[in-house]
Amino acid sequence: LSMLEELFRHPLYNLPRPKLQEDDWLLRLKTDAEAEETEQEEKSNRDSVTITWTRDEETHPPWLRFHLGISRWELYDRKDLNLAQLTHYLATQRILGAVQKKGGTQLKLLVSFPNYGQALLKPMRQSRDAETDENLFYFSDFERHNAEIAAFHLDRVLGFNRIPPVVGRLINVTTQIREVTTDERLSRTFFTSPAGNVCFYGKCEYYCSVEHPVCGRPHALEVSLATMLPDLSLAPRRSWRSPWRRSYSRTKLAHWEKDAAYCDTVKETPPYNRGTRLVDLIDMAVLDFLMSNMDRHHYETFEEFGNETFLLHLDNGRAFGRHSQDEPSILAPLVQCCRIRRSTLLRLRLLSRPDFRLSDVMRESLAQDPLTAVAPLLSEPHLSALDRRLATVLAAVQSCQDRNEDVVYNDLDEHDDQQLGENP
Amino acid sequence: LSMLEELFRHPLYNLPRPKLQEDDWLLRLKTDAEAEETEQEEKSNRDSVTITWTRDEETHPPWLRFHLGISRWELYDRKDLNLAQLTHYLATQRILGAVQKKGGTQLKLLVSFPNYGQALLKPMRQSRDAETDENLFYFSDFERHNAEIAAFHLDRVLGFNRIPPVVGRLINVTTQIREVTTDERLSRTFFTSPAGNVCFYGKCEYYCSVEHPVCGRPHALEVSLATMLPDLSLAPRRSWRSPWRRSYSRTKLAHWEKDAAYCDTVKETPPYNRGTRLVDLIDMAVLDFLMSNMDRHHYETFEEFGNETFLLHLDNGRAFGRHSQDEPSILAPLVQCCRIRRSTLLRLRLLSRPDFRLSDVMRESLAQDPLTAVAPLLSEPHLSALDRRLATVLAAVQSCQDRNEDVVYNDLDEHDDQQLGENP
Repeated sequence: LSMLEELFRHPLYNLPRPKLQEDDWLLRLKTDAEAEETEQEEKSNRDSVTITWTRDEETHPPWLRFHLGISRWELYDRKDLNLAQLTHYLATQRILGAVQKKGGTQLKLLVSFPNYGQALLKPMRQSRDAETDENLFYFSDFERHNAEIAAFHLDRVLGFNRIPPVVGRLINVTTQIREVTTDERLSRTFFTSPAGNVCFYGKCEYYCSVEHPVCGRPHALEVSLATMLPDLSLAPRRSWRSPWRRSYSRTKLAHWEKDAAYCDTVKETPPYNRGTRLVDLIDMAVLDFLMSNMDRHHYETFEEFGNETFLLHLDNGRAFGRHSQDEPSILAPLVQCCRIRRSTLLRLRLLSRPDFRLSDVMRESLAQDPLTAVAPLLSEPHLSALDRRLATVLAAVQSCQDRNEDVVYNDLDEHDDQQLGENP
Repeated sequence: LSMLEELFRHPLYNLPRPKLQEDDWLLRLKTDAEAEETEQEEKSNRDSVTITWTRDEETHPPWLRFHLGISRWELYDRKDLNLAQLTHYLATQRILGAVQKKGGTQLKLLVSFPNYGQALLKPMRQSRDAETDENLFYFSDFERHNAEIAAFHLDRVLGFNRIPPVVGRLINVTTQIREVTTDERLSRTFFTSPAGNVCFYGKCEYYCSVEHPVCGRPHALEVSLATMLPDLSLAPRRSWRSPWRRSYSRTKLAHWEKDAAYCDTVKETPPYNRGTRLVDLIDMAVLDFLMSNMDRHHYETFEEFGNETFLLHLDNGRAFGRHSQDEPSILAPLVQCCRIRRSTLLRLRLLSRPDFRLSDVMRESLAQDPLTAVAPLLSEPHLSALDRRLATVLAAVQSCQDRNEDVVYNDLDEHDDQQLGENP
């Protein structure tokens, strides 16, 4: 067994979950009666397109099976065999179209596949070993395709399963973007660079200019492809402003940066005053600190599940910008609230052990991505930084425990203690 | 004697020049009678400021002596002892003010010194060993402070003396720019970067944004300071569009790129149809090819001298962008016209000899600049590129001579041959 397989067999990655009820699923297939009803409606509506999946799950494309697998507590079941099919689908299916995706400040594309599959494409913009310039603010940093890929793996290795699967792919910018796009605003930005490479820059707020081209070599370009979530019309989402959002100003500090007791207020403010929302946020802070993502201004949840649900960790392109430095302020939610889920803490401790060292597990996990054949997705200094930062997280928890009671939020049954490797 | 001193003692760097007549000087001091007349005029004009230099040259600041030394055939006399004083002045005098300089597309400042001296400041924007991205066009490239400095030295080593002296200086962005500027548009762009450095970006067309800051460490910044030419009201200049100007488009080619016989037309077009203008242009092309400057869209002359004068080689910030590649198209004027000044050719041959190797002479010349104490102004790969490109220039001339008569424009007296090291 590989180290990653061994890790995923550990009880901490196989915790018993309450049986899912009907309303714990985000989507469900219609009953035959419902389906017939809809069909009647659609027949009377000339504009609608009828998608005729059979009721047989086998005929569902991987992206649809992924959507049908989203539950209240996680975005996917790590053991679902469909995940491998989904990433294979993203990595190999023919690209039928590519248009610019609105929203956000940097260039990204929405690509479409056969069987109505779609993915969010982010292009490679800098070499693997380039570090973000120390004089750039977090809000000026490039988005990185490998950060999107590595974030998915890290989130899965941490046992969260809250990031939609992302896969790397080497595409041909000419045949797979330029020749298939219907997006005039995108296609008119294509050009051949002095080095003879095919480049484009699109239209967006930042870095969309001929001074910041995205270039093939001469056609080949590394990209990340992230699985799309169900359409907002089917599964509306709510966007929450993070209480630890940064100021996005080069001079102003945010409230939490000036007030060490900031968490006292947050703890009393809905939805953070009950349930798991606060520890969910702290899980997210741990993930972000490990990958040094300072850009977590919002997070989302599925409206269907109300406040009792997991948090989506979307949009991780600004992670992994610097390996030589850590950013302690990302841990502020943990340090200021002194609270952490027990299952998270135990998994973090597990990943600090030599036999499950985070960097080793991540290296192995990332090796599953097709782009690893081109170049390792994270350079060794980035992998080492993960171990260093993990030690910092554990030290922060220890420091909390030295000063406070009630640091650990126990989400595990007492009788599991021995099995989980803890003394009772 | 050093290699550079030896070079400058060679007859090719000490060619006899016709005695300068009164109208061969750009400026001259007024006679006492004229001066008195002006003083009367100025007294009757309340707004004018009277600058009371005495008639005694000893009291003139170095920048004024430089202005008074400009002649029809060169910008300065290399042997003029004032040059060392001028560069010392630029490198050490107190900076009294700094404002953004209009014109051009990138950030540059006009700094002022005691005694009404001024200089054009270009800041360091990239590390010495950074090469311009191969996908960037020449018109998107950063300007480099070290290119401005190195261009001055190269032009002098080539025996042209057509670039105003440029010197490097380590300044304090806080005390020498921020605290002394009266330029509101400049001062409001100052900020402290995440790394704690003092940065600014100014207001201009390209690269003037928080994503492209100019930063001290934390205050210290390398800059180039170029001597200003006499004010346009005293010595108006004419700007000439280069016949070999590039298209400044990412798709279009210029005429000269499509027509190998382009020079036939140029040769018949005034002012290139007589005098030395064509070989002057080719001198400039040789300089630009050696330093890989693709941005020579215009050149200037002093109006006072009409068409019988040297060409100013101003604005060299985009030179020395890449050392690993040469740009043959810069040599188009030489290759298409097959014409070169004899004195230039002989100096180029001299600089290809091991005892006067261009890279060695340049290394020595650049070592005179104060910034060499911080880091060599050109990295070794850039110096080697000079030798490689010089060989290319000489090969181009040889290839012309193999195919054509009348390649060499003889600007030297026949009887000098032996002394110049050529067989009679």
